[in-house]
Amino acid sequence: MTALRVAVLGVGLIGGSIGLAARRRAGARVAGYDPDAEALQAALAAGAIDEACPSVADAVRDADVIFAGAPVGALVELIREALDHARPDCVLSDVGSTKLAVTNEIEDPRFIGGHPLAGAEAAGVGHAREDMFQDASWYLTSGAPDSSEQHARLRSLIEQFGAHPVDIDPDLHDRLMARVSHLPHVFANVLLDTAISSLQTLESQSIAAALGAGPSFRDATRVAGANTTIWTDIYMSNADQLLEAIDEAIERLATVRGALARGDATALAAWNDSAQAGREQLSQPHPAGSNRAPKG
Amino acid sequence: MTALRVAVLGVGLIGGSIGLAARRRAGARVAGYDPDAEALQAALAAGAIDEACPSVADAVRDADVIFAGAPVGALVELIREALDHARPDCVLSDVGSTKLAVTNEIEDPRFIGGHPLAGAEAAGVGHAREDMFQDASWYLTSGAPDSSEQHARLRSLIEQFGAHPVDIDPDLHDRLMARVSHLPHVFANVLLDTAISSLQTLESQSIAAALGAGPSFRDATRVAGANTTIWTDIYMSNADQLLEAIDEAIERLATVRGALARGDATALAAWNDSAQAGREQLSQPHPAGSNRAPKG
Repeated sequence: MTALRVAVLGVGLIGGSIGLAARRRAGARVAGYDPDAEALQAALAAGAIDEACPSVADAVRDADVIFAGAPVGALVELIREALDHARPDCVLSDVGSTKLAVTNEIEDPRFIGGHPLAGAEAAGVGHAREDMFQDASWYLTSGAPDSSEQHARLRSLIEQFGAHPVDIDPDLHDRLMARVSHLPHVFANVLLDTAISSLQTLESQSIAAALGAGPSFRDATRVAGANTTIWTDIYMSNADQLLEAIDEAIERLATVRGALARGDATALAAWNDSAQAGREQLSQPHPAGSNRAPKG
Repeated sequence: MTALRVAVLGVGLIGGSIGLAARRRAGARVAGYDPDAEALQAALAAGAIDEACPSVADAVRDADVIFAGAPVGALVELIREALDHARPDCVLSDVGSTKLAVTNEIEDPRFIGGHPLAGAEAAGVGHAREDMFQDASWYLTSGAPDSSEQHARLRSLIEQFGAHPVDIDPDLHDRLMARVSHLPHVFANVLLDTAISSLQTLESQSIAAALGAGPSFRDATRVAGANTTIWTDIYMSNADQLLEAIDEAIERLATVRGALARGDATALAAWNDSAQAGREQLSQPHPAGSNRAPKG
């Protein structure tokens, strides 16, 4: 049996980790391409790819599985170029953080949108890790029928990375991500701004340092000021859903504000109890064999 | 030299940890009192106190240092009772999460308000730890002059616990806590509610489980639905400052919303860059020898 041939387009943190996992965990042969020649050589040096290719066409030509990584705004073009040169029986997936913008544009049956829930604050192949996807959820927005050979090939590879593939509709994916990833990032920035502005008149370095030690603040602002290029792109590409999520959040904040303003301890307690119940609901264990999200 | 005599009133998670740290790290003899007789016996069994006292008066009578722990709403009464029976040269501190409500009421020169930035999601002496305060900031809202013998005794003991005492005005303390602790708790609840409500029509357990795996969501909601009794009390006792912080946050959310609605990537990028700068500002190292917060 010959080794699986994987192509990775864009060898940064995520692409580099895919290369490492594919080579070391799936015994695949990995061809890499990156518009940044230095990044491409760094990926080769780091063992994330077997071969540094001079073009998208060269990287994808023989591939069984292709992963495309680029800012969401540039993904569609990259995927089209790759599909133009890829084999008719290959499967191509991407790793973009929002899915509707891409799945609306690409109708090729070889394409299955993807989004691994992994990453780190640091960027670049230098921080790539073979175990980046261990135990992570990896959303797949299936274009090909779930029963296709391509779908099975992609799932199997992702499972070899240690991740859990979860099939989901692209619109549900973007709606959820607005609420569980993009809104938390917005909140982190807002919390940081709010704390900083209350310190600005104080020239209070020692207090500022003490703030950093507050565990709830530290956790809540861990992702504040994340990579501006990547996150501006994510916010813009999921603007409709994020606007809706922000509106919901403002409405909820206004409700708490009202209870607080009228000194309504009962309402505050009920509100906190409801968050407690929600937390318990979310921590239910993964039910076996039901990893298909319903349509929504 | 005889052992320092410490009294702990309220032997839950924080009081129990104070008892453990005082006994094991400062060689103190610890008298404990708790209105809950079972909790008091548990503290004795856990080695958090040397002696279980039947009343506040019995616990504080011989104490050099007294720590009072109770919900903020009950603290003033507890502190008054303790001071009535304590020695004229003792120092009494509390561990309440807001400070103005207490410091406004207690004018006794033996009283120094306190607030260790420590805790855990689990309550009770069973989760108490000797190293609970290791490297934690411990705010002191000095009533006694900073140069007093009482102040020095309290600081020294807190330092033996492994914590960093930070003197601060009570109003500045409450303003900061509204922004770095209370608002993050409100945000955590709001994020959880917003995510849950988008799931409610889906009966989507598998997705719910997948959500829990998203690292930014998990960190941002770690404190969601924290102990309702404690947190309702904290919100109510710092209502004015928290209202102001919520209003600031809503205003900032509305600004981001505006940029997003008009597709203004430049404004979003500038906003994210500013959060990045704020984050760097907060991660400046503690300047040596300047742990007195300015008046504010």
